[in-house]
Amino acid sequence: MNDELGLQIAYEEAVKSYEEGGIPIGAALVSADGVVLGRGHNERIQKNNPILHAETAALIDAGRIDAKVYKAATMYSTLASCFMCSGACLLYGINRVVMGENKTVQGGEELLASKGVKVVNMNSEKCYELLQKFIKERPHEWHQAHPEEFEA
Amino acid sequence: MNDELGLQIAYEEAVKSYEEGGIPIGAALVSADGVVLGRGHNERIQKNNPILHAETAALIDAGRIDAKVYKAATMYSTLASCFMCSGACLLYGINRVVMGENKTVQGGEELLASKGVKVVNMNSEKCYELLQKFIKERPHEWHQAHPEEFEA
Repeated sequence: MNDELGLQIAYEEAVKSYEEGGIPIGAALVSADGVVLGRGHNERIQKNNPILHAETAALIDAGRIDAKVYKAATMYSTLASCFMCSGACLLYGINRVVMGENKTVQGGEELLASKGVKVVNMNSEKCYELLQKFIKERPHEWHQAHPEEFEA
Repeated sequence: MNDELGLQIAYEEAVKSYEEGGIPIGAALVSADGVVLGRGHNERIQKNNPILHAETAALIDAGRIDAKVYKAATMYSTLASCFMCSGACLLYGINRVVMGENKTVQGGEELLASKGVKVVNMNSEKCYELLQKFIKERPHEWHQAHPEEFEA
């Protein structure tokens, strides 16, 4: 699967979250041969759950899969993966992470790269604009979800 | 709350997981004034969910809480927090992490310390022994949950 298509699936998940009243960040875990293993979106608000980020939701959707499959897969996310989600990729040995953008906020890019993970930034305007729209509409929800960024 | 008591709550969660047929790792998030904000255990096997570690389960149990509460809280876990769970502590600004042991496997201790989090190792024999018992009984379940360690 090419990266535009992988990111498009993640974007569609982000739109779904926005339509549900949630934080519009989406992700998809795609195998080496282009099979979507898992997809999901941030459900912090929808399920009152602070660890249901887009990437963790996609990992749940993928279920318990073998190390070899993780290793050859790519994690697509509309936003740079935070430390938790970067750490989840490291835990399972996912070797490639493609983000829509990191203009809104940076995450674990350096941590991932320091562990040998290939990190790609697509600089997607539409991923950025959708999230910015949410942040303008509901700043408190965003800041509560990112306390460290808020205090910085 | 003193650290022995905090770790005891985490240990009780680990025992609960073992009794359910799951990986015996437990955690508790405790506030500065000793209130248990959340507690939980690894439910990878019970719920077929690769991101339900002890610490993430405790964070879910705690719900969406304010940055100030996270900052003053301590995360207790029977085992060293993996990169995902260490990242979750960083995401929410938890400033203190107490582990039962890291003889079984090391996690994100260095990452946490590099970001200014206070990390304490209780070197608990009972936490170690409970987990070792599980690993001997069900090595495949353990190795599938820790692919990177397995390949190392």
